[in-house]
Amino acid sequence: MLPGPTNVPERVTRAMFTHIINHRSPDFVELYTEVIEKTQQVFQTKNDVVALSSSGTGAVEASVVNLIKKGDKVIIPVNGEFSSRLSQMLEWQGANVIKLETTPGTNATLEQVKEAFDNNNDVKAFYVVHNETSTGTQVKYLDKISELTSRNDSYYVVDSISLLGGVELPVDKWNIDVCMAGSQKALAAPPGISPISVSPRAKKYMIENPPPTMYFNLARYFKYYEESKHTPFTPALPLLYAFREALRMILEEGMDARIKRHKICSDALYSGLSAIGLTPFAKEEDRSITIIALNYLDGLDDNTFRNTLANKFRVLVAGGFGNLKGKVFRVGCMGEVHRYHVMRTISAIASTLDMMGYKTNTVNALKIAEEKLKNL
Amino acid sequence: MLPGPTNVPERVTRAMFTHIINHRSPDFVELYTEVIEKTQQVFQTKNDVVALSSSGTGAVEASVVNLIKKGDKVIIPVNGEFSSRLSQMLEWQGANVIKLETTPGTNATLEQVKEAFDNNNDVKAFYVVHNETSTGTQVKYLDKISELTSRNDSYYVVDSISLLGGVELPVDKWNIDVCMAGSQKALAAPPGISPISVSPRAKKYMIENPPPTMYFNLARYFKYYEESKHTPFTPALPLLYAFREALRMILEEGMDARIKRHKICSDALYSGLSAIGLTPFAKEEDRSITIIALNYLDGLDDNTFRNTLANKFRVLVAGGFGNLKGKVFRVGCMGEVHRYHVMRTISAIASTLDMMGYKTNTVNALKIAEEKLKNL
Repeated sequence: MLPGPTNVPERVTRAMFTHIINHRSPDFVELYTEVIEKTQQVFQTKNDVVALSSSGTGAVEASVVNLIKKGDKVIIPVNGEFSSRLSQMLEWQGANVIKLETTPGTNATLEQVKEAFDNNNDVKAFYVVHNETSTGTQVKYLDKISELTSRNDSYYVVDSISLLGGVELPVDKWNIDVCMAGSQKALAAPPGISPISVSPRAKKYMIENPPPTMYFNLARYFKYYEESKHTPFTPALPLLYAFREALRMILEEGMDARIKRHKICSDALYSGLSAIGLTPFAKEEDRSITIIALNYLDGLDDNTFRNTLANKFRVLVAGGFGNLKGKVFRVGCMGEVHRYHVMRTISAIASTLDMMGYKTNTVNALKIAEEKLKNL
Repeated sequence: MLPGPTNVPERVTRAMFTHIINHRSPDFVELYTEVIEKTQQVFQTKNDVVALSSSGTGAVEASVVNLIKKGDKVIIPVNGEFSSRLSQMLEWQGANVIKLETTPGTNATLEQVKEAFDNNNDVKAFYVVHNETSTGTQVKYLDKISELTSRNDSYYVVDSISLLGGVELPVDKWNIDVCMAGSQKALAAPPGISPISVSPRAKKYMIENPPPTMYFNLARYFKYYEESKHTPFTPALPLLYAFREALRMILEEGMDARIKRHKICSDALYSGLSAIGLTPFAKEEDRSITIIALNYLDGLDDNTFRNTLANKFRVLVAGGFGNLKGKVFRVGCMGEVHRYHVMRTISAIASTLDMMGYKTNTVNALKIAEEKLKNL
């Protein structure tokens, strides 16, 4: 139940068990075009997609170095580790970064974002971390942003690394120019492949203004794909096979069913864990579907708690990030998450707390979660 | 028989068939430290090693962005696609690049390199592509370079992506500051992991002068490794498992035996293929052990030849790169290459040529190759 890398279905793992092929061959073209086309379906986009052989951070860096030049004005909400990192990358690129900073656990409101657009008519791009993995917050007004970016045709960039595949994110409908996801999160594939979609106008900009970098130079990927459906550099072949299988499974389940499943499991986890006395770190209206960050009860030791949970119950959760270390723990609700995972996780956490001397009402918590899961 | 990605032993492929682990856990520390320590043994170094989740190009880019600043003077021999790319990356970084350009298929001589050092007392670094995969040349005086770099303590950087693991390259003995390899070449693992070693003084420089980049920022990797033996970004876990298994197999065989095997198989391929009338593209003294680039016979069509070889004989070789497309083909002699592969490749190429109307003396070619293989 980690906030990534998440569990991978055996069918996906098995897909890696194949011979190494030539990445300049028709076999590769068949593999890669299927990956691209199915990613487009999951992203709900007709935009170009590139599947980078890197972690999500690589795709996020690609979104920055290909689009932003020295002096460009960029608006970005900042409230945790990943939005800080993104903001740092924008500053390294020489951008004039307008940070909408809020306390970790709360998001900038849509009104604050509007105000920033009102005060900055010359903004070049709006960057947003959809789901702040470090604190368990999720921005819920992404459908409203293109009303703002359309004012002066600024670019709209969404880092949805730890969310895409688990919630509704129709890239074309919401006019998102650049959108990134990570294979190892809600898409339930192994880590190492990070897809990024690019709208025609952003693509045109990137081709006309290529950055002085090699591995994350998207113009190079567009060129190779157009010419031969190849990638410019040797791709991580086994991971592409796994990712293709994960995409097939997602489309077999159907995006609507998958999104519903994530929502219900998440509701059940929040309700059940609250019922045993744990409080979510994030403000109620900003809570993430896929990352459930919970405050530790007074005196509860991070290492003892997580080790007990891991060793006695074989349930893995993550600790806090940066200065939230020891203060919160994080439960992933992504990808392969079903009734079984929810019930087992609540029960294991409750039992661990009991073992550590905290009285919890496990039966009641499980009953509450079960009630929510009825809608599955 | 591709010049990479190369065949992967089943034992290595099977290593990927495991559960996804937390990359912030003791399980990961065990995996990653073994990868690092075994890579150090293969590199024959005590230097720090980072295993990047990227293709070889990513590691090469890391060697540039972490070490080179605007205005730095760099000497680099250039004679093919990969040395041109590296030179391009150095220029993007703002370096003053002294290119020792030679005709593809021939290397700059050690005398030319010496002359460049004589004329540039203020050089900051010497970069060299050990093995030019696009043309099948290999630089054979790497043991002599530190006499030159030691003059003013300039850095010595070797891109050995397509060679390390197949020939002698003792990083510490030859005083190489930064050295890169690729998992999918002579190391016989799947593509996607690229190790890079960094000497203490280069490391110190990188930490004191970190570049404004994220994914390939080596200072960040050093920090995470020192603090917790973690990587800063989610690593491509299945590929690390595979790479570890490949390293185990390399050390079980022993580097000396492995290098000898590569040399003998390469000799047998060159001799056998020459005996059927093919001529190597590279000048004799500059020929690569692991990449055998051969000129097409007059009128021989690239696609027909390679498709016949692939479809009738299940032997894959690569075409030419850039403006050598259609003029040469390339046979890899890396990683999992044994008597069987050599004999089968020569026989298949000879039969394909026969089928295309070129008379070859197959029996004689096989006899010549067999003679060489006796030393295995």
